[in-house]
Amino acid sequence: MTPVEPLAAGEHARRLAATRTEMERQDVDTLVVGPSTDLRYLTGFDVKPSERLTVLVLPRDGAPRLVMPEFELPTAAHLPDLVERVGWKDGEDASAVACGLFATGEGRPPRVAFSAQLHARFLVGLLDAGLRAELVDGDVVLAPVRVRKSPFELDALRRASGVADRVVEELAAHGFRGASERDVVRTIQELLAAHGNEPVGSGLAAFGENSASPHHHPSERILAAGDTVILDFGGASDGYRADLTRMFQFGEPDPEVRRVHAIVDEANQLAFEAVRPGVTAAEIDAVARRHIDDSGLGEHFTHRTGHGIGLDVHEPPYIVAGNTTALEPGMAFTIEPGVYFEGSFGVRVEDVFLVTDDGAERLNTSSHAIRVVD
Amino acid sequence: MTPVEPLAAGEHARRLAATRTEMERQDVDTLVVGPSTDLRYLTGFDVKPSERLTVLVLPRDGAPRLVMPEFELPTAAHLPDLVERVGWKDGEDASAVACGLFATGEGRPPRVAFSAQLHARFLVGLLDAGLRAELVDGDVVLAPVRVRKSPFELDALRRASGVADRVVEELAAHGFRGASERDVVRTIQELLAAHGNEPVGSGLAAFGENSASPHHHPSERILAAGDTVILDFGGASDGYRADLTRMFQFGEPDPEVRRVHAIVDEANQLAFEAVRPGVTAAEIDAVARRHIDDSGLGEHFTHRTGHGIGLDVHEPPYIVAGNTTALEPGMAFTIEPGVYFEGSFGVRVEDVFLVTDDGAERLNTSSHAIRVVD
Repeated sequence: MTPVEPLAAGEHARRLAATRTEMERQDVDTLVVGPSTDLRYLTGFDVKPSERLTVLVLPRDGAPRLVMPEFELPTAAHLPDLVERVGWKDGEDASAVACGLFATGEGRPPRVAFSAQLHARFLVGLLDAGLRAELVDGDVVLAPVRVRKSPFELDALRRASGVADRVVEELAAHGFRGASERDVVRTIQELLAAHGNEPVGSGLAAFGENSASPHHHPSERILAAGDTVILDFGGASDGYRADLTRMFQFGEPDPEVRRVHAIVDEANQLAFEAVRPGVTAAEIDAVARRHIDDSGLGEHFTHRTGHGIGLDVHEPPYIVAGNTTALEPGMAFTIEPGVYFEGSFGVRVEDVFLVTDDGAERLNTSSHAIRVVD
Repeated sequence: MTPVEPLAAGEHARRLAATRTEMERQDVDTLVVGPSTDLRYLTGFDVKPSERLTVLVLPRDGAPRLVMPEFELPTAAHLPDLVERVGWKDGEDASAVACGLFATGEGRPPRVAFSAQLHARFLVGLLDAGLRAELVDGDVVLAPVRVRKSPFELDALRRASGVADRVVEELAAHGFRGASERDVVRTIQELLAAHGNEPVGSGLAAFGENSASPHHHPSERILAAGDTVILDFGGASDGYRADLTRMFQFGEPDPEVRRVHAIVDEANQLAFEAVRPGVTAAEIDAVARRHIDDSGLGEHFTHRTGHGIGLDVHEPPYIVAGNTTALEPGMAFTIEPGVYFEGSFGVRVEDVFLVTDDGAERLNTSSHAIRVVD
């Protein structure tokens, strides 16, 4: 058994070819990809980063080679045929081995792109080993490729979101009396796994005043009467992530919570209705933000409207001011406006959407209504 | 509740002061630390890396500042007083915010060190934002600091290893009949948690021919009669890791397995006996390797002898050829010689050791004997 995942025939070849095309377009001579979702995307090799160098070196015109510790080669036994494996031994200079595989720049310093999550120690190590290059963010090459999902990827995203929706409905029936935030997160992860999602990602449960911290870390805080509750979770199917946020309330919600929730939900809906090919990511953010601004709550909407989703739970396209990326069919991202009152409560409503030929498909089907639990 | 851990008074101040001293020694003007064990070590802030910039910027002479998303500031509410928090908003240029906090080089390009696990996207982002600097591996500064453990850290390492030893003994009584490698890893993680270790780290169980792959990824392979079994695991206490490897056998071992195990165990013991202040890491590796070479098995010992251990399961000092680091009291590392026969079986014996004033303390007390299970 190896951590190399099988995929539909040709899927990796297609991804590598699209990456080469983008390297041409961006005039990048070599792409260096460390253990990350980028490596998994290109080769199926799903391995954690360590202090030992493991990188895919992809010269614009040469063969892709995976440089890795020799004694770990058995773990990469089932790589696609198109990737050659190059082992290095403990005590050898791994950076020098990798450097020897780079494309030259033909009369100028080569432009070398590094995958976004490559650990800095390896980038600095390659420079120390003599690499002279113009350094480029790997997302310049990989984002335009990964952002366009294949039918295989869209299916996985749909499956993952479907499971998250089922878990929402079960949680509503579950009741949280006496539970802590951590207890609820544990229940969520168990339900995700029971319905077939990989329980990856940390999951978020925020009770009462904690719901005003958008990225709250679940604590031992016990649910109390009157608490507004934010649950934000997803898991993954074949590595492709789900991510949704729903509101719960312990006892009947305060009218102010209902009023804010209605405004946030309208912002979610208006942004959804604005999605179609050719509209920019920034415009979607602006639609959601304008509605919340017009409702007098603008200063409490403290984050971007959403993020792309795929093998990473956060990836391009980011739905944020300044992002001029024009939406295209096959892009997938969240819309998740939120409004937060420090020390009191917060509200967020989040779904995943796919861009279609003439609009958008909402992958999450569970109701946005506040679920009253006791 | 926040992900900032409380520590003994003065522990973080001591660590930051030692880091500044090392920056002076290495002529480093600014240290940039991303979400990682380095950040946890210096500030107690234990947060996962994301696509949004979060970095501690430590100029040689100025105040340490944590640059992070403004809407996540509540999660860092309990940072040590000595660290100032600087928020940036979605849509702002976070790299530019961070760059403005760097020390200048006073007439030369500044030397800027980046923590080893910082994601390359942020290093490239800082360069794109105008940083002109000599890039330095952060371990040049942080390794000499982290490698010398405080009494607080030594206590945590002892606790973590003690729990791992208890789990070894319970596993021996447990029996694995009908279990897969993944089942055994799940049992290990449950037992580690039950005895008080954080079940971090993936844990390794390798049956039969899989035991010949030193970093095998646990599979659905079911234990079969005659299988040699490698179990390698640890968890953590207050973040400080345990890491031990013990051999099991389903039914009576083949005499050849016993012979190889005895040689590997002797190599472990000889390396242990060689540890004392002043000896280099490379010498410890050489002691273990020489014994296995002399036994005619040298070509099957395919990795270094060990690695430092602390908040990371692999950290300096690496016990490997070429590492001239002289051992000092307070250093902690594994000794884990191994011998592997592809397609057949492998053997490894691993403990954690602390360097003392006149030798070494073995933290693991569980027997190295092959445990016969059925």
